[in-house]
Amino acid sequence: MNYKQIVLLGDSITEYSSLHPSGLHLYLSKAYVRRLDVVNRGYDGYNTKMLKLALPNIFSSLGSAQQAGFVLFMGTNDAVIPGQLLHVPIDEFRDNMQYIIDQLLKRSKRIVLLTPAIFDKNRFQNRDKDLMAQYVNAVEKLAEKNKLPLVNLQKLFGSNLNLLSDGLHFTDEGYKRFAPQVLEAFKNLHLDPEDMPMKLPDFNDLKGKTDEEIDQLISEYIETYDGIDTLDRIDHHILRDAI
Amino acid sequence: MNYKQIVLLGDSITEYSSLHPSGLHLYLSKAYVRRLDVVNRGYDGYNTKMLKLALPNIFSSLGSAQQAGFVLFMGTNDAVIPGQLLHVPIDEFRDNMQYIIDQLLKRSKRIVLLTPAIFDKNRFQNRDKDLMAQYVNAVEKLAEKNKLPLVNLQKLFGSNLNLLSDGLHFTDEGYKRFAPQVLEAFKNLHLDPEDMPMKLPDFNDLKGKTDEEIDQLISEYIETYDGIDTLDRIDHHILRDAI
Repeated sequence: MNYKQIVLLGDSITEYSSLHPSGLHLYLSKAYVRRLDVVNRGYDGYNTKMLKLALPNIFSSLGSAQQAGFVLFMGTNDAVIPGQLLHVPIDEFRDNMQYIIDQLLKRSKRIVLLTPAIFDKNRFQNRDKDLMAQYVNAVEKLAEKNKLPLVNLQKLFGSNLNLLSDGLHFTDEGYKRFAPQVLEAFKNLHLDPEDMPMKLPDFNDLKGKTDEEIDQLISEYIETYDGIDTLDRIDHHILRDAI
Repeated sequence: MNYKQIVLLGDSITEYSSLHPSGLHLYLSKAYVRRLDVVNRGYDGYNTKMLKLALPNIFSSLGSAQQAGFVLFMGTNDAVIPGQLLHVPIDEFRDNMQYIIDQLLKRSKRIVLLTPAIFDKNRFQNRDKDLMAQYVNAVEKLAEKNKLPLVNLQKLFGSNLNLLSDGLHFTDEGYKRFAPQVLEAFKNLHLDPEDMPMKLPDFNDLKGKTDEEIDQLISEYIETYDGIDTLDRIDHHILRDAI
């Protein structure tokens, strides 16, 4: 039996998405229960340079599992002002992101991009609004160029600093603002939980049956539905056109 | 890089543990973020006969991942009154459970058992209090015999029907009542998140470094900490004695 995965790649905002009830990790886990596994590969403080270099190890951590999709949410750390040690110049950021996207595309065509969000400049003076806008714009352009769905967190958050817990990371309300849009993006990529058969047969079909009959029904179920993934049957271009 | 897993095996109460903020799946995901993956293998309506027969497929769904531990939470459905199609006689229940435990032990020595909890007999007349007590007792005895930690949900829930959402399944408060005890059991089995290194180096050690230096630091980190799992170094008997 094959449970595919949605893998969340990002920095602390992704890592902490397991800490809040509406955090993306927990939100998607709830949506896809008994359909696929959602795994968190967020790393506090990482910029695209670090993520790119860690990528082979992150892939190895997925073992033999197949990926149904990825969420890629980077840029917040790259965009610290020049001179700060985490800073990644905009051109290098764009190249790193394209490199990561190319690597992910080898594993799944379903990649949802998130732009960096907002921050409280009074509390994070190592970031600058105009500079951050360049990184947001770069992610927008990468989505367009690669024909990938995008959730623009700057537009979604507006100027509502209440969505931030410490001026940079998100409150539960912050996560709740965009997690449904990520799910919506996956639905548009033919990964709607409601269209996916639940793993293993319904108990109503198994109850009162002999061991042999149950074995038979499980085998038939696996043959019919396992690995069902519309992506496997849909031509890549049709999928892209559907975005 | 190796993310081990905690696998939750059970029926609907386990399946739905992804739906509530304090549900065991989400609770443990939060506790172990960036240390290991928590995966939900709960199947609504399954009794031990069905779970036993589905077990090879459930194992195959874990791919090449290694298991750091399991939670096994069955019995609520087996204990429906004789004549009901889900009913599994107590002796067969005990045998099925022992079989499942034996299979799990081949993959990890850390197995936390949960007893069936309480139910509202006015709403679930297909279950009986005295009969359910036999299944609770059987799980207690299995824990003792196999030297596995046990969380007794009947004792924990007492007569508080407010912990049930529909007279059988749990409210968020119900999950919250025991999820910390499951985490505590894993801590006692040398799986304390606070003692486990976070996956991938701290960004502070990587920032400002060249690509080569970052590669080197990641390699050193993986060599030093990856696959670190106290279990691998602790003699099986010591682990058992620690329970």
